[in-house]
Amino acid sequence: MSQRLKITVAYDGSAFMGWQSQSHRKTVQDQIEHAVHRITGVRTRVHGAGRTDTGVHALAQCAHIDVPDRRLPATGWAKALNGVLPSTIRVLRCRYVSSDFHARFSAKGKTYRYRIFNGPILPPLELKRVWHVRVPLSIDLLSAAGRKFVGQHDFSAFAANRGKKEDNTVRRIWSLDVKRRGPAISVEVSGDGFLYKMVRLMVGAMVQVGLGKEDPGKIDADLTNGRVNGVRLAGPGCGLYLIRVWY
Amino acid sequence: MSQRLKITVAYDGSAFMGWQSQSHRKTVQDQIEHAVHRITGVRTRVHGAGRTDTGVHALAQCAHIDVPDRRLPATGWAKALNGVLPSTIRVLRCRYVSSDFHARFSAKGKTYRYRIFNGPILPPLELKRVWHVRVPLSIDLLSAAGRKFVGQHDFSAFAANRGKKEDNTVRRIWSLDVKRRGPAISVEVSGDGFLYKMVRLMVGAMVQVGLGKEDPGKIDADLTNGRVNGVRLAGPGCGLYLIRVWY
Repeated sequence: MSQRLKITVAYDGSAFMGWQSQSHRKTVQDQIEHAVHRITGVRTRVHGAGRTDTGVHALAQCAHIDVPDRRLPATGWAKALNGVLPSTIRVLRCRYVSSDFHARFSAKGKTYRYRIFNGPILPPLELKRVWHVRVPLSIDLLSAAGRKFVGQHDFSAFAANRGKKEDNTVRRIWSLDVKRRGPAISVEVSGDGFLYKMVRLMVGAMVQVGLGKEDPGKIDADLTNGRVNGVRLAGPGCGLYLIRVWY
Repeated sequence: MSQRLKITVAYDGSAFMGWQSQSHRKTVQDQIEHAVHRITGVRTRVHGAGRTDTGVHALAQCAHIDVPDRRLPATGWAKALNGVLPSTIRVLRCRYVSSDFHARFSAKGKTYRYRIFNGPILPPLELKRVWHVRVPLSIDLLSAAGRKFVGQHDFSAFAANRGKKEDNTVRRIWSLDVKRRGPAISVEVSGDGFLYKMVRLMVGAMVQVGLGKEDPGKIDADLTNGRVNGVRLAGPGCGLYLIRVWY
């Protein structure tokens, strides 16, 4: 009998080629699958709540694994996995869940944070942790642009094509907050689902508005038309943090 | 004619073997001297306000350099140096100063921050940026211990021997503040000067008190006696940040 284990994981995205398993094995999923194999001797698939791209960080990604039996209490699993995983990945919590729980399909939504450093010189400790935008951004315009995304929209203009076309590109954004503290800008966005590169394309569009290069109304038009008129800008992966998966 | 340039520098300590020049050249001082040489064609010594050890970070270290002439305005120097330096070192500001300014001897004091992560699992993004203390610390005891250091004392019990004995081990601590935000603890300490490894040994003694292993009164005794009765604990370099040099 196998048991389903839900795990909550943090990682430094700069150390990996994203979440999703790849032949070179330098991904977070590969590292966790390898750790489970070392502990149990059995090869098991790890199902994440969502993929994160190269450079994207996670404060609390969720995943599930079917582990062979209940040899270990859930807290024992966190210790065992952290004993094998590199310190750039940490299992924060584990708990046993019913077999109909699915990290991806049971998720009701996610919260992401996007960090921008807005100033001429990037502090070394912010390397690979922010989008460095040198030219001054208007926080008012950035917020005005961000508000356009809140609610239910067809986000096809804010999705990258991952080979196949998504069937349904309608998503609901629950909230989007922009905060500034000196040169540090943070955008926190929650919603019921996110298309491929959606947050990075949303923040890219917000930055174009914040620089005065586009009008906030352009975002309305892009949401209505389902395609972007002009150049699309995506914020780099290193500025993005998956901070919560809602179940 | 040479001109004296004061530079303010930030660096990620995890990328270097400390500030002080060494034969392997993997130090911050070596990197800056190499950058000046590439710009001017002349080998010049860089004088820092103080040495930082391997792993120690700087948000604002200060240094001076005698540059060959006034070819470049001070702001041009920041750009030129950042164009040559690795992105793990950034020159934040430059200005020309009179030739009697000395980064070390003109300094009236310094402010350091020491960061502790107090919890069982270290978030990956805090790796090499904090002292990871797993066992719960009492913030009240930590603060009580910290207050003992404020004022003028003979700090010889809180200094490591760097080969030679310091002539004068009396220093004045202007302020020491302990703050907690969840598992993140930060100690900010300002004073007119710091002996070798002094902040790390002070924080080490505070942690021993915060863990309930020592009484705060032991710090009084160590300051009075000029030596430590028992084991000394030094916080790791990676938790320490030089945040300001006062002139």
